[in-house]
Amino acid sequence: MSAPTASGPALRLGIAGLGTVGIGVVKIVQRHAEMLSARTGRPVEITAVSARDRSKNRDADLSNYAWETDPVALATRADVDVFVELMGGHEGAAREATIAALKAGKDVVTANKALLAHHGQELAELAESLGRTIRFEAAVAGGIPVIKTLTEGLAGNQMRRVMGVMNGTCNYILTRMEDAGLPYDIVFEEANQLGYLEADPNLDVGGIDAGHKLSILAAIAFGTKVAFDDVVLEGIGKISIDDIRRAGDMGYKIKLLGVAQMTGRGLEQRMTPCLVPASSPLGQLTGGTNMVVLEGDSVGQIVLRGAGAGEGPTASAVMGDVTDIARGLRLPTFGQPAASLKQAQSAVAAAPAPYYLRLQLLDKPGALAKVAAVLGDAGISISRMRQYGHADTSAPVLIVTHKTMRDAIDTAISNFPRTGVVEGEPVAIRIEEL
Amino acid sequence: MSAPTASGPALRLGIAGLGTVGIGVVKIVQRHAEMLSARTGRPVEITAVSARDRSKNRDADLSNYAWETDPVALATRADVDVFVELMGGHEGAAREATIAALKAGKDVVTANKALLAHHGQELAELAESLGRTIRFEAAVAGGIPVIKTLTEGLAGNQMRRVMGVMNGTCNYILTRMEDAGLPYDIVFEEANQLGYLEADPNLDVGGIDAGHKLSILAAIAFGTKVAFDDVVLEGIGKISIDDIRRAGDMGYKIKLLGVAQMTGRGLEQRMTPCLVPASSPLGQLTGGTNMVVLEGDSVGQIVLRGAGAGEGPTASAVMGDVTDIARGLRLPTFGQPAASLKQAQSAVAAAPAPYYLRLQLLDKPGALAKVAAVLGDAGISISRMRQYGHADTSAPVLIVTHKTMRDAIDTAISNFPRTGVVEGEPVAIRIEEL
Repeated sequence: MSAPTASGPALRLGIAGLGTVGIGVVKIVQRHAEMLSARTGRPVEITAVSARDRSKNRDADLSNYAWETDPVALATRADVDVFVELMGGHEGAAREATIAALKAGKDVVTANKALLAHHGQELAELAESLGRTIRFEAAVAGGIPVIKTLTEGLAGNQMRRVMGVMNGTCNYILTRMEDAGLPYDIVFEEANQLGYLEADPNLDVGGIDAGHKLSILAAIAFGTKVAFDDVVLEGIGKISIDDIRRAGDMGYKIKLLGVAQMTGRGLEQRMTPCLVPASSPLGQLTGGTNMVVLEGDSVGQIVLRGAGAGEGPTASAVMGDVTDIARGLRLPTFGQPAASLKQAQSAVAAAPAPYYLRLQLLDKPGALAKVAAVLGDAGISISRMRQYGHADTSAPVLIVTHKTMRDAIDTAISNFPRTGVVEGEPVAIRIEEL
Repeated sequence: MSAPTASGPALRLGIAGLGTVGIGVVKIVQRHAEMLSARTGRPVEITAVSARDRSKNRDADLSNYAWETDPVALATRADVDVFVELMGGHEGAAREATIAALKAGKDVVTANKALLAHHGQELAELAESLGRTIRFEAAVAGGIPVIKTLTEGLAGNQMRRVMGVMNGTCNYILTRMEDAGLPYDIVFEEANQLGYLEADPNLDVGGIDAGHKLSILAAIAFGTKVAFDDVVLEGIGKISIDDIRRAGDMGYKIKLLGVAQMTGRGLEQRMTPCLVPASSPLGQLTGGTNMVVLEGDSVGQIVLRGAGAGEGPTASAVMGDVTDIARGLRLPTFGQPAASLKQAQSAVAAAPAPYYLRLQLLDKPGALAKVAAVLGDAGISISRMRQYGHADTSAPVLIVTHKTMRDAIDTAISNFPRTGVVEGEPVAIRIEEL
């Protein structure tokens, strides 16, 4: 047979945003020109780039590319086939340029989770009405090809549940608190010094960034419109080193875990601290690594693990999308036509689960019995309980309940004060069963 | 926008082989007709099936499908678009029917690792010359979409190393040996009774089945022709419970691990018992679950974990391929044109590694020094050593070496007898660094 040739016309990229990820993409295109054309059957080239500051010193040679100061101008250039949006932000330039690119007949590759979480439906409908595609592997879990796995590899499955640790900074903070025995505030400040936090740290530690990612995965998994506003968000700011230690004593780790599942009452989406078994893949995840767990009716449980951020991993995800487009692979944005996505009924706390409870109990006769009675009255049964020696007049008590509803837990918590034996604020954290 | 419709023509499947996987595919197509057409934009149907024994009682209603006794007849039916080959075996009917299907203009989906390991190049060239595609997600690591991840998701990466525990039976046997403290022969017999072993058990415990899978992954990862004959195969039959325990003492687990990497001397492919750190994802893998580790120059390390066999997971992988074809996704079999795949230089033991050595040392003065001298003469330096108390006249000694070449280990082993202090056969197992 004949020798390989890159016989197709070049695929021409216009890259908007030359931060870490943008430069990472430039490097891959430059370093692997031959490999990319062997794999896609055509040259993959960059024709133009755009960023706020042209004079900034960047770690790549950009002299062969046209420079645009306006990303909309870049997005609509005649010599650009694919608009690669790496600017970030869900309003303003990123959204405007993406719309302009689609209207000018370009395909779009983006790493912008906020854009998709807020405007995914509108953008998908626009792209599909114009016969264009929007790809966004880099928007969720960095280098892990989770969008492709969910949309294509597991397309024969009705998905049951999607879970993930998808904010490396939060997982770094929780791991570091545990390893160093340091409180949240100190480790938060450390992470800040190390440059691990977004300019608005609440995007990380408040769970917003990870919530964006979860809402995108949920749309694909369940064939529903992205509903970021329905994600129950709870950050890691209230996690104490005490809870990390106590949970460890009971065989659990605390993670900022995203969970999306279709329940009898509707679609439940949560991005909240959860306990997971210490011996599970999620429990063993340390530092900034991401993990996504996909559960389907046929495949069972698939676990994907990899770097959730950084130049190389995120650029790898962008290039996965670029090579797909170069090869002519085209899919609806969320795996089925945007017009066919359903508006999900939002369900809050619809799935039952065991809970971890930490109470500070006064040293009075019958104290434990009183607490058990409150739980029993709320319909909660106790699976395991551990009482610690008391230094003073009170002692911590840990309780792992059997499966129950969040409502019942809240009822019990509101009734604890009446017992006269519970001191301070009880802590209740959901245990996600894996 | 308009309501969703499955507007395309139906994709019609002909399924040859109605064992566990075939029936699993039938069930998914029947159960999820609506979901599949929403996701692919067209109905996915079965028109005809084929198996050896028509009278066999099967767990699915096949009454609506045409029956063919001859798989070639099935493969060439006018009302079949995709030939789904789930018969197995690399000679005879599976190969013949696959070729017939391609020549009749059908795409092929197969779960047949042996067929691809032995005839992948020939079949890929044939498919590509005819403008057809062969998909085989189910051939490697069951439900884990590793072929798609490697071929598409990581297409922007030069791959550095591909590793995997890809035979669930072997991992079950090794895990069970450790947990129950039972020797290999007993656990092998248990596995046999449980029906976990192939009719020819050497396919499992000899590493052949997993070697087939590794050779397929290597071809995609490195752009080389499948070279199964170059895979260094070593089964798990010689692993003793003693080594499992001793390795555990040193912080390792023993796995039948496949490793493919491009070295300065050529492509190294090994499917052999290895030690891996007990705390690594591979080390923590127990029972029949599979895991694949993909290392790329940009993405770093991606770890995929899931069920490696069984009706649901394998059928899920088949359906991933079917939905790809229904959506019009078409790629060269090994990710780039078959004619462009290079014949890899085969390298054996080309990558250096630390090794685990277990020696039985006679209780003589200076015995350890003599062993250390033999290692030093072979250019091997010792990282850690552990000597156990001796019950009789000899005692086990464990040595973890620094990185060295297999040649050097073999030289040392051949020189140990001359010391007069080493009893019996030393054990040397490679430690794969993760």
